[in-house]
Amino acid sequence: MINLKEKSLELHKQFKGKLSVNVKVTVDNSHDLSLVYSPGVAEPCKEIYQNPDKIYDYTIKGNLVAVVSDGSAVLGLGNIGGAASMPVMEGKAALFKAFADIDAFPICLNTNDPEQIIQTIKSLEPTFGGINLEDISAPNCFIIEERLKKEMNIPVFHDDQHGTAIVTAAGLINALKVVGKRLEDTKIIVNGAGAAGIAITKLLLSMGVKDIIMCDTKGAIFKGRKNGMNSMKESIAEHTNKNNVEGLLDEVIKGNDVFVGVSVAEAVTAEMVQSMNKDAIIFAMANPIPEIMPEVARVAGAAVVGTGRSDMPNQVNNVLAFPGIFKGALQVHASEINEEMKLAAVYAIANLITAEELTCDYVIPHAFDNRVVEAVANAVADAAIKTGVARKLEIEQEKIV
Amino acid sequence: MINLKEKSLELHKQFKGKLSVNVKVTVDNSHDLSLVYSPGVAEPCKEIYQNPDKIYDYTIKGNLVAVVSDGSAVLGLGNIGGAASMPVMEGKAALFKAFADIDAFPICLNTNDPEQIIQTIKSLEPTFGGINLEDISAPNCFIIEERLKKEMNIPVFHDDQHGTAIVTAAGLINALKVVGKRLEDTKIIVNGAGAAGIAITKLLLSMGVKDIIMCDTKGAIFKGRKNGMNSMKESIAEHTNKNNVEGLLDEVIKGNDVFVGVSVAEAVTAEMVQSMNKDAIIFAMANPIPEIMPEVARVAGAAVVGTGRSDMPNQVNNVLAFPGIFKGALQVHASEINEEMKLAAVYAIANLITAEELTCDYVIPHAFDNRVVEAVANAVADAAIKTGVARKLEIEQEKIV
Repeated sequence: MINLKEKSLELHKQFKGKLSVNVKVTVDNSHDLSLVYSPGVAEPCKEIYQNPDKIYDYTIKGNLVAVVSDGSAVLGLGNIGGAASMPVMEGKAALFKAFADIDAFPICLNTNDPEQIIQTIKSLEPTFGGINLEDISAPNCFIIEERLKKEMNIPVFHDDQHGTAIVTAAGLINALKVVGKRLEDTKIIVNGAGAAGIAITKLLLSMGVKDIIMCDTKGAIFKGRKNGMNSMKESIAEHTNKNNVEGLLDEVIKGNDVFVGVSVAEAVTAEMVQSMNKDAIIFAMANPIPEIMPEVARVAGAAVVGTGRSDMPNQVNNVLAFPGIFKGALQVHASEINEEMKLAAVYAIANLITAEELTCDYVIPHAFDNRVVEAVANAVADAAIKTGVARKLEIEQEKIV
Repeated sequence: MINLKEKSLELHKQFKGKLSVNVKVTVDNSHDLSLVYSPGVAEPCKEIYQNPDKIYDYTIKGNLVAVVSDGSAVLGLGNIGGAASMPVMEGKAALFKAFADIDAFPICLNTNDPEQIIQTIKSLEPTFGGINLEDISAPNCFIIEERLKKEMNIPVFHDDQHGTAIVTAAGLINALKVVGKRLEDTKIIVNGAGAAGIAITKLLLSMGVKDIIMCDTKGAIFKGRKNGMNSMKESIAEHTNKNNVEGLLDEVIKGNDVFVGVSVAEAVTAEMVQSMNKDAIIFAMANPIPEIMPEVARVAGAAVVGTGRSDMPNQVNNVLAFPGIFKGALQVHASEINEEMKLAAVYAIANLITAEELTCDYVIPHAFDNRVVEAVANAVADAAIKTGVARKLEIEQEKIV
């Protein structure tokens, strides 16, 4: 780990960051200049002015995503601010390029005020084809995403919420196949009521899960709970925990089929896993140390265990979702990323693993499985067309990596 | 020209714009991922959080310029809006890269409200090392630049004003050498009171010109003029036209040494040039058709003629200024681009042409003279250090192209 830290610092210093802006055309002489700049450049300007959709033909907008953060919830580092979040946002932009050939650009802001963040991002709409919100703390991330989805005409996606939710849901679908249970009969605990936990819970509800309880540090979230509530948790309480179960995690986890952790290291003990139903499924995604180590969970009876780590089986890695989701949305000039598109991504990821290939240690495709981005992009583009949010009705197949 | 228009459209469509965002490091496997993204990326974040200046070591900020426009004064097209201005801003970013190896990125805004533009750009401060304002109409361009210079800690530069002014002033210094006149004895007319005209006038005043009259479509600008004034023109009237001369251009141009046009095609006639002093100097920079064609001006007695066109001698091209100015400012982490830095750029450009090389058709270096960016960058960096606005006191020579 010390070696990794040093190596990362060295790499960042050597290259002074990770991105560069490059020119796709030649600018070697006056003739080139007259095409890419004045006077020739006036022509695409006039075309776009006459027909705004032509911006997708003549500029980089159609393949360009802003990775926007105020640095308020960066990795496990807390609110370190926009400037200190630059390495993460550059890194995220690098992943967009490496995994989906999407041009992505870091936009790190020096304000934590949600209204100012909203106004700033809205002002940038002409430039970008999509907005990826990143590492913005709750509840601002909910407020900002909701407002921008309503007020902008390009896809807005908070990856910490939906990316995590989509990959978790895909893994869960396959894990249930391994143990032979049905989603709609499954009892699920989601531990951690931040951005990811809320999004996972909402997505699972929309997929037909009927029995789900969210927990935070105060225990089960239920209607009428007094302490540690906020508007998101109150809304969650309306749609989950139908029997109004109270109690801390170690009590409420008993008799459940699935544990989904987006909380803290070592939040789950072997005893808790033992108290769950037979063939329990554990997604322990606290980083870098999971809620319970996979080998401990397996010995305690878990049938399938996933984590957020690349050195363990079943890694829940957002890189399986956001590159293909944006790729698909951009291909058809989608005006938004709606629930149907997210669900399409879930099933595209899950279905990449055939019934024959499925094992308890392989319910989620590997991060570098190069089939993923194309499968997700196609499914998402199709869903966009079917739900009427696509402004372009054919997919340019040659654009897919 | 028709051919140029078609070729430009074709080029823009073929490449879908002119820029791409690329990754300088490899992202081929989990190990790479752990360095450029989680968990390794936490290290540069922590370093920057502890010591904000380290953002220049670990991120792209130090070599990154935003090319910002609201699309309100694009080329000769007027207020076509942020979206339609994208091809120009991408083109400008391409010039930054091609001429100075600076990573530059278009930021096109969907608002013309100066306060919203100011707030948006201020919010982006963590990301960028400098702000190049472009094609923003007067008087907003003055308001926006002035506020941002005060309220931001990175260089802010409105190229339409200062780039044009710097290259014009450099050309004028050399033209005066050709005709053997002294700047402080020279009588100058500046025709056109937009952003460029105002900036040229201010810069010439700061260089020691004592007799200068600005004209607009209503004629000479003088203290107490009633029609067609605004706050910028009133301020200009305080510092120019000391004898309070009134009248239209064809009258006030008589007996002057220099005509600087940033106005409209054919604003100057042969008769007007004939009415000027012997060895008149004409900078006729209206685009694409100059205020007077060079051959007409020469026949009428002009000794030196410059235009904005690449197919005529003495092209006043901003590309001689902004790449080196930003390069120099970025090299020393300057907090602003001050008057001394602009003057340093003027003399660096002028002095590239030796006394022996100077002719009436060669008072300004060619746009693709690759000595220019280094000379300007070094002069600007030195001036930043001398005036105390540099936060880094050595120039990294290897960074110069």
